[in-house]
Amino acid sequence: MPEQTNSVSPSRRALLGWGGAGLVVGAAAASGAVAVTREDSGAGDAVPAAATGAAVDFHGPHQAGIATPVQDRLHFAAFDVKTDDREEFVALLKEWTKAAARMTAGHAVGEGAFGGLAEAPPDDTGEALGLKPSRLTLTIGFGPSLFEKYGDTFGLTGKRPKALVDLPKFPGDNLDRARSGGDLCVQACADDPQVAVHAIRNLARIGFGKVAIRWSQLGFGKTSSTTPEAQTPRNLMGFKDGTRNVAGTDKTALARHVWVGEQDGPDWMTGGSYLVARRIRMNVETWDRTSLREQEDVFGRDKAEGAAVGKAKERDEPFLKAMKPDAHVRLAHPDSNGGATILRRGYSFTDGTDGLGRLDAGLFFLAYQRDVRKGFIPVQRSLSASDALNEYIQHVGSAVYAVPPGVRDKDDWWGRALFTGKA
Amino acid sequence: MPEQTNSVSPSRRALLGWGGAGLVVGAAAASGAVAVTREDSGAGDAVPAAATGAAVDFHGPHQAGIATPVQDRLHFAAFDVKTDDREEFVALLKEWTKAAARMTAGHAVGEGAFGGLAEAPPDDTGEALGLKPSRLTLTIGFGPSLFEKYGDTFGLTGKRPKALVDLPKFPGDNLDRARSGGDLCVQACADDPQVAVHAIRNLARIGFGKVAIRWSQLGFGKTSSTTPEAQTPRNLMGFKDGTRNVAGTDKTALARHVWVGEQDGPDWMTGGSYLVARRIRMNVETWDRTSLREQEDVFGRDKAEGAAVGKAKERDEPFLKAMKPDAHVRLAHPDSNGGATILRRGYSFTDGTDGLGRLDAGLFFLAYQRDVRKGFIPVQRSLSASDALNEYIQHVGSAVYAVPPGVRDKDDWWGRALFTGKA
Repeated sequence: MPEQTNSVSPSRRALLGWGGAGLVVGAAAASGAVAVTREDSGAGDAVPAAATGAAVDFHGPHQAGIATPVQDRLHFAAFDVKTDDREEFVALLKEWTKAAARMTAGHAVGEGAFGGLAEAPPDDTGEALGLKPSRLTLTIGFGPSLFEKYGDTFGLTGKRPKALVDLPKFPGDNLDRARSGGDLCVQACADDPQVAVHAIRNLARIGFGKVAIRWSQLGFGKTSSTTPEAQTPRNLMGFKDGTRNVAGTDKTALARHVWVGEQDGPDWMTGGSYLVARRIRMNVETWDRTSLREQEDVFGRDKAEGAAVGKAKERDEPFLKAMKPDAHVRLAHPDSNGGATILRRGYSFTDGTDGLGRLDAGLFFLAYQRDVRKGFIPVQRSLSASDALNEYIQHVGSAVYAVPPGVRDKDDWWGRALFTGKA
Repeated sequence: MPEQTNSVSPSRRALLGWGGAGLVVGAAAASGAVAVTREDSGAGDAVPAAATGAAVDFHGPHQAGIATPVQDRLHFAAFDVKTDDREEFVALLKEWTKAAARMTAGHAVGEGAFGGLAEAPPDDTGEALGLKPSRLTLTIGFGPSLFEKYGDTFGLTGKRPKALVDLPKFPGDNLDRARSGGDLCVQACADDPQVAVHAIRNLARIGFGKVAIRWSQLGFGKTSSTTPEAQTPRNLMGFKDGTRNVAGTDKTALARHVWVGEQDGPDWMTGGSYLVARRIRMNVETWDRTSLREQEDVFGRDKAEGAAVGKAKERDEPFLKAMKPDAHVRLAHPDSNGGATILRRGYSFTDGTDGLGRLDAGLFFLAYQRDVRKGFIPVQRSLSASDALNEYIQHVGSAVYAVPPGVRDKDDWWGRALFTGKA
């Protein structure tokens, strides 16, 4: 399966067989999804995948975009369902799956692309043509409202996982309904933002009349890493804040903290995970006028190196009691929360300026976990009650989703086990 | 001058002399702006600047960020002045210049960085530490309102250039005042958006109390190229739309169409340019349901290759009369506008979703020219009157700025000739 090769990084141009000589769509395009060329796989062998813009496997036991090494950019969209027709919704999930497999492999949506009828709209909107796959991943999730609103209609009554709880209201929450919730979500991560934006836009286009975007969020820079050997990125407060994240290669930790196990139930979620998304506005102007000492006390780390209080290096094991009781690292640490551990995949955002001339900027927090009740909720209870950081941040958007397991092969589709009852 | 080397691509971490061993700020940092290491200049010699994250010269006869090969990402900010104190404003311009020189070279703002007093806020907000210079350019402009509102206060009476006209209202304009105008602007372009966002944020921080951001815009993907040999990028309509742009290496064309000449006046603008910024919302959902033929007729190009109607290749000279009279390429062509030619540097944006569930997406159009009256205005008069594209777009923000010449050396500063009267 070409989608499963990891070191191939064809450009979308090459895939479609376009040279510089006009409109001829050649054999590579005509053969569709199997038209991966290997003309530059030599470079792919020598250069890290991130640098070559390689493709990430779409198929597998888990959805890509969770344990996958975190890509640089994000476009995240929450959708609401607009149809009462189960067949139509299932057909959409199948069509989305097919399009996602093509786009993540670096192909245009639809085998016809522009080779089809001039009288019809193109199958692909076109702005990613010529761009590399850029490690695009597309990850779908189902929100609580899908089960509540469409339980009867879609035959989902009783299928809502117990672990997919509504989040409690935490102290300090100032949630905007227009930036919260959603029947569905798609997380698009890629090293090229144009590739991520293209993917969400084309899924929205395919879903026209059946689903509509409720809200969306662009993230311009990752704030977490799932690859311990890579440099830990910095958030908009200038701190490294994901040093002790779950590693995407640590199968034991993933099985314990991230993937839903067979024993957890429901069956359709085995191999899946739960996603919490929080839009966290940072009062960067206030933060920027705070002394270095105060900033370091708030986090419990030094700013330059990222080492915990009293330690020399970023990865030295923190000694929590050396920190102030309300330090962020101390309160967020698994040892302060009965071992609660979440895989973080957040992104910095800036969405222009608010009415007071302040940057509308902050952290779009994304965290995956095996059970929201044992992951985000205890950690956030602790943080929202006491975190010294609360003076500088505000949670303004919130959503939670059940993220089903991976799409096994080209005949499988997003949510199949949920809708057919067959694992 | 280290800022003037073009092939050096030190990481900000290396510049500050931080190894992995904690907080020791070594000799490289202590020596400040001359602390450029050359540890990876070997790679820089073999790999294109874009790939190595190299620095672009800040100093020179023209500001960088105009003829410079277009970087991938943008953060653009319009500021309003908040002080009536000329000395304070001039001091800000000097401080901004110094910070811009450091940031574009890949340094943190301020020589102290975190080596200073723990009791003071850090000089740099920190989120770009460890990132490469990423070809960051920072380009300042002065809006008409600076001259109108602060003419007496700042001694600028009579100094407003004739070519810095207020733009007329064009048919179809639906401008939002909150996304238009501004006494000043700074255009930050970089291959890494975090580097661009960091730069604007730190300038805003330095300007606290003296200037405030009026509006800002993130651009996630370039839509124009000033390097003819590079692949022409695509806009969010999926089309290549900057094929015949002014080349950044074409000194004749730049002198004719972009740089203000000595004979043009005023003296303080010699070597400068004029910038028009327009936020152009695209109705992408409507566009995406339009047939390929209609889309190609609207542009006057084919979508796949980008060739003009009846031509085989993107760069074949277009035959305008083969296109429909209202085709975009035909109406925008210099031959249809008395030779009017502008250097385009626009970026695609997406700012979430509007109240109707549609993507708030489009083109943040940036164009540089020697005289707005002979550049943007005639082209936009032609387009706004007849362009077939108008059915799918709307201009929702607008601004125009006088962009002064470059900063010559480390003693020079942004706007010096304007404020001192000495060229």
